[in-house]
Amino acid sequence: MNISARHCHLTPEAVEALFGPGAKLTPMKWLYQKDQFAAQEMVTLVGPRSRIISNLRILGPCRSLNQVELAHTDSIALGFEAPIRFSGRIEGTPGCMLMGPKGFFELKEGVIRAAPHVHLHPDDAAFYGVKGGDFMRLRVGGPCALTFDRVFVRVDPEFKLEVHLDTDEGNACALQPDTPVELLK
Amino acid sequence: MNISARHCHLTPEAVEALFGPGAKLTPMKWLYQKDQFAAQEMVTLVGPRSRIISNLRILGPCRSLNQVELAHTDSIALGFEAPIRFSGRIEGTPGCMLMGPKGFFELKEGVIRAAPHVHLHPDDAAFYGVKGGDFMRLRVGGPCALTFDRVFVRVDPEFKLEVHLDTDEGNACALQPDTPVELLK
Repeated sequence: MNISARHCHLTPEAVEALFGPGAKLTPMKWLYQKDQFAAQEMVTLVGPRSRIISNLRILGPCRSLNQVELAHTDSIALGFEAPIRFSGRIEGTPGCMLMGPKGFFELKEGVIRAAPHVHLHPDDAAFYGVKGGDFMRLRVGGPCALTFDRVFVRVDPEFKLEVHLDTDEGNACALQPDTPVELLK
Repeated sequence: MNISARHCHLTPEAVEALFGPGAKLTPMKWLYQKDQFAAQEMVTLVGPRSRIISNLRILGPCRSLNQVELAHTDSIALGFEAPIRFSGRIEGTPGCMLMGPKGFFELKEGVIRAAPHVHLHPDDAAFYGVKGGDFMRLRVGGPCALTFDRVFVRVDPEFKLEVHLDTDEGNACALQPDTPVELLK
């Protein structure tokens, strides 16, 4: 279970444009999924109405496409709509300008709200009887009890079992470390 | 179905302290529930670490107790925790300072996150087979489909059928005017 704050994934070219020639991401904190990390590096996102989000964390390692993942609250603050997408499905999504200490980098597209999803190892998928592309449900207890009815299933031998929600979803159910949760087929 | 942005309910004494002797709330927009309105008047909330929320809307008419209703996101921004409560159950909740154009008014307690709830006329309650104090479920469709599992039931002859969520809950399911919703026993 992980609540992902807003963040971005960048290509090596974008990192160099923002942080200078030869620049690479520096791991600050290792995440639960293998080889994934929060980088020390952050950027400023400039939205379509000159509103900005500063200190947008970059997650590493670099990928083959640029993607910014915002909560719905962030979209409203920026004054535009980030459509709900699965990671990597960025065709037709809005772009934005990123600003780093050494330069700007424009995304023509790639600003999304990531759909709730679960990372499963093939053994986990077999245990639950699901496959990649299915949807599962996540039931959250406590005073703001709610059930996420469309948690997208991603399966990979490198994955460890982990549900990813965004901050709006986490805040809606006031998720605390001791809140009971249950993943259901 | 209504998404309530953060707001407060005030006593006549608080309104006079904030807006001057003899001041009364001025209806700006009538709400769906009978005689309830968003007032033209707004206040500034000063939190425990000198962080503020400006332009906090007052809902009228005046009540017999003072209550500030925030989303979880607002609590985080202010740096404190507003517990999840039903309206009016404010014992032991944090207080705050309110600032108006004519003075300050301190709430010793009353800052809450309102629990999801539904207003029902007795005829609606009979239709669904529920009574005041029960919980219902609200199923929301769309790409961020989720089900609110603990929607508190309030019944009153003056009420019209309406579910009240806060902005975190509305943003979690990316509620739009055409999003399908279903209220379930």
